[in-house]
Amino acid sequence: MNRPLILVSNDDGITSKGIFTLVSVMKEIGDVIVVAPDSPQSGMGHAITVGETLRLEENFIFKDVKAYECSGTPADCVKMARHFVLKGERQPDIVVSGVNHGSNTSISVLYSGTMSAAIEGAIEGTPAIGFSLCDFNHDADFSHTQEYIKKITLQVLAKGLPKGVALNVNFPAKQAEPLKGIRVCRQANAKWMEDFDVRFDPHGRRYFWMVGNFVNFDKGEDNDEWAIANNYVSVVPCMFDLTAHQSIPVLNEDWDILK
Amino acid sequence: MNRPLILVSNDDGITSKGIFTLVSVMKEIGDVIVVAPDSPQSGMGHAITVGETLRLEENFIFKDVKAYECSGTPADCVKMARHFVLKGERQPDIVVSGVNHGSNTSISVLYSGTMSAAIEGAIEGTPAIGFSLCDFNHDADFSHTQEYIKKITLQVLAKGLPKGVALNVNFPAKQAEPLKGIRVCRQANAKWMEDFDVRFDPHGRRYFWMVGNFVNFDKGEDNDEWAIANNYVSVVPCMFDLTAHQSIPVLNEDWDILK
Repeated sequence: MNRPLILVSNDDGITSKGIFTLVSVMKEIGDVIVVAPDSPQSGMGHAITVGETLRLEENFIFKDVKAYECSGTPADCVKMARHFVLKGERQPDIVVSGVNHGSNTSISVLYSGTMSAAIEGAIEGTPAIGFSLCDFNHDADFSHTQEYIKKITLQVLAKGLPKGVALNVNFPAKQAEPLKGIRVCRQANAKWMEDFDVRFDPHGRRYFWMVGNFVNFDKGEDNDEWAIANNYVSVVPCMFDLTAHQSIPVLNEDWDILK
Repeated sequence: MNRPLILVSNDDGITSKGIFTLVSVMKEIGDVIVVAPDSPQSGMGHAITVGETLRLEENFIFKDVKAYECSGTPADCVKMARHFVLKGERQPDIVVSGVNHGSNTSISVLYSGTMSAAIEGAIEGTPAIGFSLCDFNHDADFSHTQEYIKKITLQVLAKGLPKGVALNVNFPAKQAEPLKGIRVCRQANAKWMEDFDVRFDPHGRRYFWMVGNFVNFDKGEDNDEWAIANNYVSVVPCMFDLTAHQSIPVLNEDWDILK
């Protein structure tokens, strides 16, 4: 392959340290174009902007890389990249998203704007990877991730990905010891136990902050939580077909209301 | 079972005709509590509100049903219902969401706020159903859906659902002929082909509307698009484990970078 064309997006916004890390690695691999949110979009899940207008402006923050900031969600960014910015032109060979400031392991994949950008790539039939670091710090240390981001991206460019699959890659926060390697994992069985912190505004009206604890029910060693806890890079192949295929015959057999 | 406790939410907002339809059916089945967005949330996917505050106020629109309006997304509404409104009390026996004004078949399930409320139910281990009508009209005719909403809800209350599964139920827009029945389906292989309608605001600055055509690649008769096109109610069992399990051995075999 000639130099691949790489579309970069994220959900922390175009000025975050994580996207700078990702762009710097991608420049070593191919030609890069960035379309990313103009402000943080964490927790946006697979939201798209249908009832409101969108803005898109060129942004010069990366100097030698063509970049655009978009007022929409990460999924909007990938759609605008393909169907406006690159319309009628060469389409990306790969979509990469991140590096997210914060974990997107386990159930968090559902709420993840980072992964929604990657899944938009997969919907369009393009190999796609979302990268996340399990460290929320704005000035998080990404230095241990770069070597692996490069390896994984090159591997995906060389081998492709199964149809309809995007990768959810998570890195442990930087430890004293180096990373132990890469594990291909399933999504751990875990969830957030929410609570709501009740406060009152200066006008005496009640408002809430969502808070919560992450609870891991999973005893296995083949899941992403285990990998991260053991200082491995976790790679979960994710799909956008949500059908619980194995449940179709169950319902067809059990339900009286089908005829 | 005694009268079940039914949590109702939606994504079109607490004043939509669709949620009135759903509440009216649920009142025949059990005790109802509503926690729904205070404004339309279409296209919100599985978004949650983490970086901003939330509001929740009692709402008296349903007269004989306890109801709350929430400033957040459909997923937020289900979380607030469980972990604030009903905290320490009896939890719902079932979560129902909708009836959405507009289709949530095929790939639209990913972008659907209606289904994110249902999937939040499934994450908490509660049977959950999202209902959608393939008619965007604010004053859409829901009269053909009520009998089926009742049947399906009673069936789920009687039989339960497989672990981790929520149902995505879609109804065809009202036809001259009655509905033909219910089909348990898989998510059709289809996608949106977006385009961006470029406009200029009164200050001469460019903005965009996302538009698009739905393209169905699926030739099968076992999918939700086929069911809707043939005047059946489609029921797709959906799961929140996004892992492409069959791809794990593929990556483990193909990748050189694992050791």
